[in-house]
Amino acid sequence: MSSGSATCPEAHAIEPIFGEEMLQTVAALTPSVVSFHFGLLERSAIEILKETGAVILASATTVREAVALEAGGVDAVIAQGMEAGGHRGVFLDGIDLGAVGTFALVPQVVDAVQVPVIAAGGIADGRGIAAAFALGASGVQIGTAFLACLEALMHPLHRELLLQTPGEATQVTRNISRRPARAITNRYITEMNKSGTEPIAFPLQYSLSGPLNAASRKNNSTDLMVMWAGQDAALAEVMPAGELLNKLAKDAKAVLAKL
Amino acid sequence: MSSGSATCPEAHAIEPIFGEEMLQTVAALTPSVVSFHFGLLERSAIEILKETGAVILASATTVREAVALEAGGVDAVIAQGMEAGGHRGVFLDGIDLGAVGTFALVPQVVDAVQVPVIAAGGIADGRGIAAAFALGASGVQIGTAFLACLEALMHPLHRELLLQTPGEATQVTRNISRRPARAITNRYITEMNKSGTEPIAFPLQYSLSGPLNAASRKNNSTDLMVMWAGQDAALAEVMPAGELLNKLAKDAKAVLAKL
Repeated sequence: MSSGSATCPEAHAIEPIFGEEMLQTVAALTPSVVSFHFGLLERSAIEILKETGAVILASATTVREAVALEAGGVDAVIAQGMEAGGHRGVFLDGIDLGAVGTFALVPQVVDAVQVPVIAAGGIADGRGIAAAFALGASGVQIGTAFLACLEALMHPLHRELLLQTPGEATQVTRNISRRPARAITNRYITEMNKSGTEPIAFPLQYSLSGPLNAASRKNNSTDLMVMWAGQDAALAEVMPAGELLNKLAKDAKAVLAKL
Repeated sequence: MSSGSATCPEAHAIEPIFGEEMLQTVAALTPSVVSFHFGLLERSAIEILKETGAVILASATTVREAVALEAGGVDAVIAQGMEAGGHRGVFLDGIDLGAVGTFALVPQVVDAVQVPVIAAGGIADGRGIAAAFALGASGVQIGTAFLACLEALMHPLHRELLLQTPGEATQVTRNISRRPARAITNRYITEMNKSGTEPIAFPLQYSLSGPLNAASRKNNSTDLMVMWAGQDAALAEVMPAGELLNKLAKDAKAVLAKL
């Protein structure tokens, strides 16, 4: 489960999407894992979720964010490198500060916190999983590779483009939701960049990008479509998700055995 | 040895720094390795260097660049991720296209070329070396970690800052030489960004940044100093270079043995 904005000792609460009602709903559902993006709820709310037995995760894009999340009570930190597709979990330090790559971020987060670290960003196959473990991660979070799976409700053109998109043909943009997020560069992103228009508040920017996305999907055009993708998109393969999960585990073991 | 600009089948020769005279000089010196940055010389020049017994390396920042370098006759490709300090070796695709992280770049380059791949960017310790091998690299290129070594002619303030600089406090800037290069964010970079001034042609932009750097060094100020650094700078340790080399090899073996 991914949440909206929240607070943690040093964080700025930008938009109170995850309020008391959402907290009570989640607590009642007793999920095994609650994973936060864009920061963390305050400590008292985290304790309520922990009392239900939930494991608490949250994403950090810098060492400073990882340390703040640990202080905020997470059971493990997700170290999200700039290669990742979709929204960057950034919540401290200003949204425009230099984005750190997975290779540099993971070992520095591992050194800075006591809780386990889950590596995210640029991991799409057995090699990536083995490399993340080498950097000191205790687990990995994989997004883009699962977008290509048959179960994902992907527009066929998005799935097709995903498989042939090199890393440099994606970009982190604020034009879709206002929060920085990595997507495949298309006409919408390029023209919005050119226009220099400042996006409106998160998540209201979706009221602009959403209808254009819907129309583009309906017209079988990628021009204005929202197409999330990490820089590892071209490593993805089309197969059922269960098969991919087994393949990833098998391939990672094979890579580790050969090292 | 690192060279200026050059050409390869698809590349644009931007500045003919490496001309006939330079080629003859290098060939006469018979170095063991000739490593190119910002593209490759034309095939006939590469053959002249190869006939001297030199191993030819060159840097790629995208899969397309790696394929072009292989076609141009390199013996191995350096896959340079965006975490790397100093100049990005970008020579195709336009300088402003999305920068790809080491984690996403290395396996995709390994899949695309037959020659060995050397991983660069974000690698500063044994964990990084082991991770690069897991991604399929046959070797690594380490820069920033050696900047902290006693033999490096570093200004003491640059060395000191290096050890405490998180990845997000560096940025890729064109304000120093016009070509994109990663350095520690300081007053010079921040104010040049604010000014919106377009840098003049490479390497002439140094005629602006160079004297300011020299004056800043002389005055023991980091304000206008050129301070190259990768996103892994804070992993560096101060020691003699030989000791670091032995430590890296030993630590990488220990990480690999534990996986």
